[in-house]
Amino acid sequence: MDSILELIEQKHYSKVKKILSEMLVPDVAELLENIKNDADLVITFRLLPKSLGAEVFSYISPELQQTLVELLSDKEIGYIIEELYIDDAVDFIDEMPANVVEKVLKTSTKETRQTINRLLRYKDNTAGSLMTTEFVDFKSGITVEKALARIRRIGKDVETINVLYVTNKERVLIGVLSIRELLLADPDEIVDDLMETNIISVETNCDQEELALEFKKYDFLSLPVVDKENRLVGIVTIDDVVDIMSDEATEDIEIMNAITPNDKSYLKTNVFKIWLNRVPWLMLLMISATFTGLIITKNEALLSKSAFGIVLTACIPMLMGTGGNAGGQASATIIRGIALNEITIKDYFKVVWKEVRVAVLLGISLSALCYLKLLFIDGLFNEPQGYLVAGVICFAMFLTVVFAKVVGASLPILAKQCKLDPAVMASPFITTIIDTVSLLILCGLTSALLPV
Amino acid sequence: MDSILELIEQKHYSKVKKILSEMLVPDVAELLENIKNDADLVITFRLLPKSLGAEVFSYISPELQQTLVELLSDKEIGYIIEELYIDDAVDFIDEMPANVVEKVLKTSTKETRQTINRLLRYKDNTAGSLMTTEFVDFKSGITVEKALARIRRIGKDVETINVLYVTNKERVLIGVLSIRELLLADPDEIVDDLMETNIISVETNCDQEELALEFKKYDFLSLPVVDKENRLVGIVTIDDVVDIMSDEATEDIEIMNAITPNDKSYLKTNVFKIWLNRVPWLMLLMISATFTGLIITKNEALLSKSAFGIVLTACIPMLMGTGGNAGGQASATIIRGIALNEITIKDYFKVVWKEVRVAVLLGISLSALCYLKLLFIDGLFNEPQGYLVAGVICFAMFLTVVFAKVVGASLPILAKQCKLDPAVMASPFITTIIDTVSLLILCGLTSALLPV
Repeated sequence: MDSILELIEQKHYSKVKKILSEMLVPDVAELLENIKNDADLVITFRLLPKSLGAEVFSYISPELQQTLVELLSDKEIGYIIEELYIDDAVDFIDEMPANVVEKVLKTSTKETRQTINRLLRYKDNTAGSLMTTEFVDFKSGITVEKALARIRRIGKDVETINVLYVTNKERVLIGVLSIRELLLADPDEIVDDLMETNIISVETNCDQEELALEFKKYDFLSLPVVDKENRLVGIVTIDDVVDIMSDEATEDIEIMNAITPNDKSYLKTNVFKIWLNRVPWLMLLMISATFTGLIITKNEALLSKSAFGIVLTACIPMLMGTGGNAGGQASATIIRGIALNEITIKDYFKVVWKEVRVAVLLGISLSALCYLKLLFIDGLFNEPQGYLVAGVICFAMFLTVVFAKVVGASLPILAKQCKLDPAVMASPFITTIIDTVSLLILCGLTSALLPV
Repeated sequence: MDSILELIEQKHYSKVKKILSEMLVPDVAELLENIKNDADLVITFRLLPKSLGAEVFSYISPELQQTLVELLSDKEIGYIIEELYIDDAVDFIDEMPANVVEKVLKTSTKETRQTINRLLRYKDNTAGSLMTTEFVDFKSGITVEKALARIRRIGKDVETINVLYVTNKERVLIGVLSIRELLLADPDEIVDDLMETNIISVETNCDQEELALEFKKYDFLSLPVVDKENRLVGIVTIDDVVDIMSDEATEDIEIMNAITPNDKSYLKTNVFKIWLNRVPWLMLLMISATFTGLIITKNEALLSKSAFGIVLTACIPMLMGTGGNAGGQASATIIRGIALNEITIKDYFKVVWKEVRVAVLLGISLSALCYLKLLFIDGLFNEPQGYLVAGVICFAMFLTVVFAKVVGASLPILAKQCKLDPAVMASPFITTIIDTVSLLILCGLTSALLPV
């Protein structure tokens, strides 16, 4: 990579041209991302074989696409737009500011412009916004021979020929078959006899997360998208789904860690934007810690004036920490289960009952270990009423763990039921609740069981 | 689903048979998973069209596979094994206990047995263990016409015909082409003139996570696997990669929340196993909270005997919580960036410098808000030396946030460098460090700046 960049800087263009023609498209895209200088960028892009240009264009970042569009001629842009698969063209247009969109659409043919405008109307992150309208479809009743002839005719301009679609006169989808079934069949057979008629399809407004789960379940390479009348309007291909799955996992991890999700990669996001994605959550969580402060102040007599006050105070971080971790384990497991459609609202009681049993086992193990730690590491065995104080702390630990597990498992499912993102109910958020409750438990038990 | 289960219970087998023959394979698998009774299970499985049986078998869980194998005859098992794609057969064998493996291998042909045994030798989660040996390859130099004839001949038994491979006499991989390129070409052309020779391949010991990233980057449908001499030994297909990506994200989320990863879905894991996956981490983290306890005990004079002790004590949960959340944000972002190969060790200083700047901005915003909260919500403006105490707490907040961000961003990268899983360095683990340091900062600043 560095050596090609050097060749570009030194203007050894014929060498660069030769290397570029042998590189794979995603690698060329990566190279372009690393060129610092606009003039070098445009020259390098122009050195690409014409047919490769559009493909490379679909792999570069929106920022670089914009830079390039501003540097290229109308004719060059027009060529790229026509060559791009229509879903890539729509993705690109969708990211550009209005003036660039205008410039780009002006250069494209009327037909392309109409298709792009139609596809732009679908809501982001739905099947409609992801699909391509360039696929192979057959009219019901044609022979294998004619079907193969059609593929030879239009195969160059479609996104995939691996999966093929059969429609009736009303353009309603009636069957799906693979290129393999077609190739292995007798030339005189009718496609209707080969096709699968039990079709899984999605509507244009299907959310991309749900779409990805269909691909995962059925091992599809592409999935037909239909309108309300079941007419075939497009297909979504697996390459887009791979990116969706990765993006959805990233988004969940971000939300689970109190970060507003962000499309851009970390190294390309500026400091201010990162600050903006993080600060509201931290502020919210910080302010909600007011409750713990209040409880501590209210229990001043217990925590700073009683004989064992400092012991109780010293165990607060451990109690809160363990409660938070226990709740975080449960909520993370359930959030992921919901995202993969393995857990739904009807499993609610099954989940809570499971967590209660796990929590009791965990509570017993942790309290036992905590009891030993308090007595022998922290030396409570040597203090007046040490055994009793340790017992109370461990009882608080037990109750906190059980509470944390139930809350951690319940909130994501309830959030889903209320059409909120379950990922919000992860460790940072539930920790605030668990912190407060664990303090109430500790102070409550102490007042009730220890002689103040 | 429920209505079919009812039909099975009522022994309406001819109806069930008809419905089954029209269902999609993953849906049949789901149905079988829901049959409670062994006799019904075997009957339903036998009602499946013979060709479908093996395919359904590859979609059911290892537990159900084992149950079925124990119920079916040797002849039936033999048929399934021969019909399964070899990678699915290997996955299945890999999950079975020794006695079942023996029973199964006895029923298969010598050739299948040898292939399975060879593939079983590859380490789990490597390309070798995931690949299938059933693909279409051509000898260099053959014509398009002959290539298509070969596909028609062997196409039924391979896992995919969408991507095709060309090898030389030594079985070294020299080119890759798609079925589309082949179909659109002139019958007399030589495949060598059509194929891409800049080939991305992986060796058999390539880790599945790395493999998945290649698929994501290049939008592959399948990827060739070669041995040390670059001979083509198998291919990995996208359907397996979709599952790998999902599993890897789940695993990362589990580790990031202090859970030992688990292959099985939550609802299928028993209570004891869930306890086992969670308890060691909770114990470890609980014991490591000993440090915070020690610091609090050491600062007894400050925290429980000084005039403003209770104010300081009351802000400990807020300080620790904010520090933990701030660190968790940074570590989650960096862990995900490393998993997607967007961040590597060479970005270390760039990342830390970015986090320091973000942390300073965050530290200022949070301290300012915290100052207002302490004065006006918690009423410090009314206390003797209230402004000074609030200032000290906010200064501690600022330093804690900066420290948390640097630790949160650094540890995942350093872990990766030490060949540890970066996901371990997520919120629960770094929180323990941040808790301790934030306490030290608070007590240190108080002793230095406030009159005790």
